[in-house]
Amino acid sequence: MVTARELAQHLAADLAGNEAAWDQSLVKLAPLDKAGPDALSFLASNKYRRRLTSSQAGAILLKADQVEAAPSGAALLVVEDPYLAYARVSERFSRQPPPSGRIHPSAVVSEDARLGEQVTVEANAVIGAGCDIGDGCRIGPGCVLGDRVHLGRGTQLMANVTLYYDVILGADCLIQSGAVIGSDGFGYAPHTNGWAKIAQVGGVRIGDRVEIGANTTVDRGAIEDTVIEDDVIIDNLVQIAHNVVIRRGTAMASQVGISGSTDIGRNCTLGGQAGFAGHIKIADGSHFTGQAMVTKGTREGGLYSSGWPIQPSREWRRTVARLRQLENMEQRLKALEKASASKSSSEQEDPE
Amino acid sequence: MVTARELAQHLAADLAGNEAAWDQSLVKLAPLDKAGPDALSFLASNKYRRRLTSSQAGAILLKADQVEAAPSGAALLVVEDPYLAYARVSERFSRQPPPSGRIHPSAVVSEDARLGEQVTVEANAVIGAGCDIGDGCRIGPGCVLGDRVHLGRGTQLMANVTLYYDVILGADCLIQSGAVIGSDGFGYAPHTNGWAKIAQVGGVRIGDRVEIGANTTVDRGAIEDTVIEDDVIIDNLVQIAHNVVIRRGTAMASQVGISGSTDIGRNCTLGGQAGFAGHIKIADGSHFTGQAMVTKGTREGGLYSSGWPIQPSREWRRTVARLRQLENMEQRLKALEKASASKSSSEQEDPE
Amino acid sequence: MVTARELAQHLAADLAGNEAAWDQSLVKLAPLDKAGPDALSFLASNKYRRRLTSSQAGAILLKADQVEAAPSGAALLVVEDPYLAYARVSERFSRQPPPSGRIHPSAVVSEDARLGEQVTVEANAVIGAGCDIGDGCRIGPGCVLGDRVHLGRGTQLMANVTLYYDVILGADCLIQSGAVIGSDGFGYAPHTNGWAKIAQVGGVRIGDRVEIGANTTVDRGAIEDTVIEDDVIIDNLVQIAHNVVIRRGTAMASQVGISGSTDIGRNCTLGGQAGFAGHIKIADGSHFTGQAMVTKGTREGGLYSSGWPIQPSREWRRTVARLRQLENMEQRLKALEKASASKSSSEQEDPE
Repeated sequence: MVTARELAQHLAADLAGNEAAWDQSLVKLAPLDKAGPDALSFLASNKYRRRLTSSQAGAILLKADQVEAAPSGAALLVVEDPYLAYARVSERFSRQPPPSGRIHPSAVVSEDARLGEQVTVEANAVIGAGCDIGDGCRIGPGCVLGDRVHLGRGTQLMANVTLYYDVILGADCLIQSGAVIGSDGFGYAPHTNGWAKIAQVGGVRIGDRVEIGANTTVDRGAIEDTVIEDDVIIDNLVQIAHNVVIRRGTAMASQVGISGSTDIGRNCTLGGQAGFAGHIKIADGSHFTGQAMVTKGTREGGLYSSGWPIQPSREWRRTVARLRQLENMEQRLKALEKASASKSSSEQEDPE
Repeated sequence: MVTARELAQHLAADLAGNEAAWDQSLVKLAPLDKAGPDALSFLASNKYRRRLTSSQAGAILLKADQVEAAPSGAALLVVEDPYLAYARVSERFSRQPPPSGRIHPSAVVSEDARLGEQVTVEANAVIGAGCDIGDGCRIGPGCVLGDRVHLGRGTQLMANVTLYYDVILGADCLIQSGAVIGSDGFGYAPHTNGWAKIAQVGGVRIGDRVEIGANTTVDRGAIEDTVIEDDVIIDNLVQIAHNVVIRRGTAMASQVGISGSTDIGRNCTLGGQAGFAGHIKIADGSHFTGQAMVTKGTREGGLYSSGWPIQPSREWRRTVARLRQLENMEQRLKALEKASASKSSSEQEDPE
Repeated sequence: MVTARELAQHLAADLAGNEAAWDQSLVKLAPLDKAGPDALSFLASNKYRRRLTSSQAGAILLKADQVEAAPSGAALLVVEDPYLAYARVSERFSRQPPPSGRIHPSAVVSEDARLGEQVTVEANAVIGAGCDIGDGCRIGPGCVLGDRVHLGRGTQLMANVTLYYDVILGADCLIQSGAVIGSDGFGYAPHTNGWAKIAQVGGVRIGDRVEIGANTTVDRGAIEDTVIEDDVIIDNLVQIAHNVVIRRGTAMASQVGISGSTDIGRNCTLGGQAGFAGHIKIADGSHFTGQAMVTKGTREGGLYSSGWPIQPSREWRRTVARLRQLENMEQRLKALEKASASKSSSEQEDPE
């Protein structure tokens, strides 16, 4: 429960609009067209400006030049970037239960693990030998931390997260359920009777403020470490292979796959299901649309794509058939060009 | 252990064929060509009709017009839809251990959780505050239920399922191991130093008879709820992003990815690895083949496809090269058309 | 800690190079250009030969014909296949904590499970009735084994692995965290009001020396078993549907998806995110590049590909547009060919 006045103070926003609403309780977030007097809303894009005027919201985050279109009943919070402001206050409306700050009796914590202050360890979590857990960390129910895991202060692991031995996370990271960090990289030497496993002796080093989605996997390095730098955000079901480096500020959507030793630059965005070959280097500021097939590195930033969007299947079958005849079309085109050229030249040589 | 007579009664099927086999014990399911006298089999498609006549099965589910081709030794269960009948009796042959109906002493159940009658909670499961678990539910070993989870009657969670706080499932749902429901949606506002997390204050609402596969992830909504309606079936490793709506009766195969706020209509089928952009609307009865790249909504049902199937890599490399020269081919084609047209017109203008 | 002399003995390698280094302690693995005197390195490919001469490594695995380029300070281990040799000694440098050989008191082990000698069961693991666990097996923290699971000797399950009832693994398998084996296959019969579930009464049979990656899913069979033969290696987040057969020696990279009843031959390699339709047969020795779309079986081994790699998005949009006009281009090409042919023939018929 919070008021528009309190939020304005928190955001250093200008308060405007209906003064009578400045001190009313806001108990939830809602979109402009569904918000009532107990809800905070925001106008992130002028695309939704029409919804602004008729909104019943108790308070609205908006830009200065949107104030004139605002409804008369709402408290207005005037900010430069309403979407960012919304992000910054959204936590106030979360229903996520706060950490207890206690070690649940059913948790199995190694005697020589070091736990900072105000650490929460929930039911049935397991913490291995030599772990070092920073102040204010939260280890969800069913999590397993192998030996010598380090967590920086304020890092949170939701339920059923698995961290293998020698995994290092920085401060204020958030790892969703089912994520696995530090699993063996996929390294084998072929031999006549199968595959000889290569022990993966590297670790995983993750920076500060990194977020990792549900059921995402991050493999440990073969010899050196797999590295994820500060401020990287990773969605669900993503695969990060051994010795990958993800540089700061990069974001990747669900089901992306990055093969071994690939280096993803800073401030890149990777669309869902995009796949990256191994041992390539992606330039800073490279952006990829969904399902992109990335077989080579990029030398400069920019937007890259591949794949063709759906067609009705009957058309699609024809397209595929034609696609396979491209070589044939090329040859026929060449033949026509040759015929045309020889005709032209014969006409030029023997004008009548 | 069951007899053909009992199954006929259960299915309201007509009994025919070898009367001596009507009361023999059937202890397993088997394909027509591998079934012995202790097995029930079925003829789902006339494609396999040749296998029918020589089958040694003890009992066979089939249609009336297939009876004449049946072997003389088998009990025959005559039904309209043998495949559906097989589905309906298959449970009788399951070897899955039945639920114990007890709370395992190692489970950690919040004092204020409400458990219905005949609820099974298996070893090391964790049930949060304010949960409401319907009659006959089964919570597998290692499952974690956050606060205020609601499960309708008869819903089953296999081992190591994670449900976050405020997740609501209807009756008779079945969730496979490793599935994560209610994880944070991938919502961030960009700012100069990285990404500001947007608290995901919505929940997840799932209807009745929904099945969700192993290691599938369903994110909670950003502001409003993520919704999966009744009778939806979802395979393994699928990603359902925040605020997606899946309407009733839709089926999606493994590794499908659905981006945020997309609305999938009723009775759709989504092939494996198909990817859906965010904020699009898919019409009822839309069907997509595997790996389909769906960047825009569909206005009507039908079958949609994209992508081209494998070629030997040498041919494929040529196809890719030609594909990148399509613009060039188009220009050359235009030039030829122009030359041809001017020639024709000059011939027509100046006939000799 | 190990010396070059000991490794040479283990590998039956010839010792050469700096004799003073033969008995020095090697405590880690490192790439040639980063290795110091305490590190073992290797030259897997002549591509890196330049790094060999300047390497500070304490010991180097290499081929006989590479000895001349080796640095003078290093102990040299001369072998036929340096990469394979590296794989074989890599385990010596692993930091993975060894199994304790004990049953953790928090584990829940069914009274009638049979555990071999030197079995390790870690914290909060759950082992069902009728399980049979071979000598030297390791069951990681939080693992859940359903009833009647069989593990061959020396098989290891890392943390939070889930094996359903009636899953059989051979000897010396290694299963990474979050993997789920034996989940229900995706089998339903459509009916007017939705989907009738088909009980999946088959099991999963896995051979010896099989490795399965983190969060990979392997479904149990519908009627008969899903089968993975010896020496198969599977990366993270892979989907193996019901009744798939994977034959010996095959390797599959991350996020591959194999639909139901498909049969993958021996010694195949499947690139990341490749997708396979159901009920197809892949010949021995078939290799697929990443994201391959495999809708039909292969009749012979070889390298297969599909998909086109990224372009700058502006070019890509043009390519997609042209791709959809291929039918139109074909028609125009035919018209030109016809015009050209009639002209030629008319010229031939009526020479002037």
